[in-house]
Amino acid sequence: MLLTDPVAILAELIKMPSVTPNQAGTIDYIEEIIQKIGGDIKRVDSNDTTNLLATIGTGKKILAFAGHVDVVPSGSHDKWLNGSPFELQRHNDELIGRGVVDMKGAIAAFLSALIEFNNKAAPEDYQIMLIITSDEEGPATDGTIKIVKKLQQEKVQLDYCIIGEPTSSKVFGDTIKVGRRGSLTGELTIFGKQGHIAYPDLCINPIHKSLAALNELVQIKWDEGNQHFPPTSLQFANLNAGLGVTNVIPGQLTTNFNFRYNTVHNSDSLIKQTESILNKYQLQYTINWKHSAKPFLTKVAGLVDIATEAIREVCKITPELKTDGGTSDGRFLIDVSNELIEIGLLNATAHQINETTTVSDLTQLTAVYNSILHKAFYG
Amino acid sequence: MLLTDPVAILAELIKMPSVTPNQAGTIDYIEEIIQKIGGDIKRVDSNDTTNLLATIGTGKKILAFAGHVDVVPSGSHDKWLNGSPFELQRHNDELIGRGVVDMKGAIAAFLSALIEFNNKAAPEDYQIMLIITSDEEGPATDGTIKIVKKLQQEKVQLDYCIIGEPTSSKVFGDTIKVGRRGSLTGELTIFGKQGHIAYPDLCINPIHKSLAALNELVQIKWDEGNQHFPPTSLQFANLNAGLGVTNVIPGQLTTNFNFRYNTVHNSDSLIKQTESILNKYQLQYTINWKHSAKPFLTKVAGLVDIATEAIREVCKITPELKTDGGTSDGRFLIDVSNELIEIGLLNATAHQINETTTVSDLTQLTAVYNSILHKAFYG
Ligand SMILES: [Zn+2]
Ligand SMILES: [Zn+2]
Repeated sequence: MLLTDPVAILAELIKMPSVTPNQAGTIDYIEEIIQKIGGDIKRVDSNDTTNLLATIGTGKKILAFAGHVDVVPSGSHDKWLNGSPFELQRHNDELIGRGVVDMKGAIAAFLSALIEFNNKAAPEDYQIMLIITSDEEGPATDGTIKIVKKLQQEKVQLDYCIIGEPTSSKVFGDTIKVGRRGSLTGELTIFGKQGHIAYPDLCINPIHKSLAALNELVQIKWDEGNQHFPPTSLQFANLNAGLGVTNVIPGQLTTNFNFRYNTVHNSDSLIKQTESILNKYQLQYTINWKHSAKPFLTKVAGLVDIATEAIREVCKITPELKTDGGTSDGRFLIDVSNELIEIGLLNATAHQINETTTVSDLTQLTAVYNSILHKAFYG
Repeated sequence: MLLTDPVAILAELIKMPSVTPNQAGTIDYIEEIIQKIGGDIKRVDSNDTTNLLATIGTGKKILAFAGHVDVVPSGSHDKWLNGSPFELQRHNDELIGRGVVDMKGAIAAFLSALIEFNNKAAPEDYQIMLIITSDEEGPATDGTIKIVKKLQQEKVQLDYCIIGEPTSSKVFGDTIKVGRRGSLTGELTIFGKQGHIAYPDLCINPIHKSLAALNELVQIKWDEGNQHFPPTSLQFANLNAGLGVTNVIPGQLTTNFNFRYNTVHNSDSLIKQTESILNKYQLQYTINWKHSAKPFLTKVAGLVDIATEAIREVCKITPELKTDGGTSDGRFLIDVSNELIEIGLLNATAHQINETTTVSDLTQLTAVYNSILHKAFYG
């Protein structure tokens, strides 16, 4: 029997403890649904990661829904309601379990919307793709990027792409993500000369040498942001020097920092400006840069309008268009999408103990997805 | 049989592995010598520490020799010449073993000088004290400070005090220490608010908050020093923030730093100035101060002149008067000494693998100590 209620589908998905990169049956379960509604299935597995590319309908216009079945670890089960992160707990309107928000809830909502849409629509009128990975919360090197490569090989360009990440901030539907900032990490080691603290003249204290340069870096206003993006932000995450004893000047200081940057910059301009400051202070250093995401911004056109209208109908509010927050697989999917947005549940409890959504939010999200499908293909 | 040769005495002392606070027979051995030459012995032991206070002669004028039998651990025996840190190794002029420099060599030299002096001098002309502890390299809370307290109780004031720490820098005899800087350590924790690196507005990054204040602290010229002291030095030893992951802004930064300070300052003035900077930057912090030594400076009078003259005679060089380097038990002994200096061997290999002095340096140090005794009581 084909479950159609999003809460029932979510309960099935939550039962399977699909901690990255283990799909734990979730992708098999989704495949079963797709097959029952007459869709076509491809696997683009890579190493430990399971990647599903499913197609329903034969129309020319393509709308893809992208998401991940993997969840972050639950932490100690004791801390969860009833001690069961991998059983969907219902408590009045609340639905609790690992992944309800990020993002099995959105997958359940889209599947429910898809089943209903498919019952009514003619296959030649639409083409819906499902792009589902089991490696979004992990290194993401074997996940969505592999499906994107497959689409590029096959010269498939998506008209619309919707990612089900939890984008809502205060109430469901208040935010549509229309882009994401880039992410650039620097791993910096600054060298001095170790020695006894009573003989500083024989040493070079790497802490002392570094402070002015690091302080200059954190004081910089990198940009003002622009219409769609907040200002570029530099944040230090780790800073370590010292042998743990109080009488030795250490030989080096290590630190790492992360830029969340907007479309005013690119990674090269940030790297150049950072290194010019380190050079200005004549530091002896090595730096290792990791560029994990370039910023992207969708074309603000048809899809944004459709989604805004769908949310207005269902939620009676007008969503804000935002680009803040972490990175998402949108950084990969933008390369094969004409338009790309992210719409999902409230993100407040994502990755936390007792991750929680509600039946009403899930029902609304299902209605929003359903409305988008109708508007996209019949609007 | 009473050994009188300093190399022979040193060989006996090195044999006993007196790693702090274990005297390992060294103090018993010194007591035996004192008894053989008619001296008087008191023990001022405290917890694990053995403290010897010996008196030879009945004169009014008191000259004390102060030192420690404890040594720092040898490290891996394999790395030492012949694999034997606790056997005195002689290699041409070189003498190798744990403690030859710091400071069993000086103890051997003084004992040798004392035996010779004692053979010639009349007991009523002099009073020589030995103040020897087995806890100088450790916490030093049960060592010399306990003997100083005993002397204070007995209202004994030393006219001259000589400490046998390795003070020579480039060649034997080039330096007399006439004081030491104070040492003040601050353990500082600066608080922020932890969170995800993509949402810096919801966090307070304690690294960012701290850098300007810490940079101001390291840029300060605390003073210019004075005739006898180098400038006060502030050195950071440890600086740590971060959870080791790259996507979290940490909740706090911890650091510790050490002032080596001169007589221009006192600990209160340094504490006040430091905290006023932390307050100026409106940091949320806790600070724990450890004041391990106040600075001291001997009266530069009779004893300095005698020691300078003795070195000139023996070494044909004029020693410099210095106050740099680490702390010593002089910080305690100054409270019961009219005049206090430190003279010992070359410090270059102290605490290291293959700690090394030479027969010629040891012989010269013995001659210097002997000359000081003659000049002090018959000069
Ligand atoms: Zn997610
Ligand atoms: Zn020493």
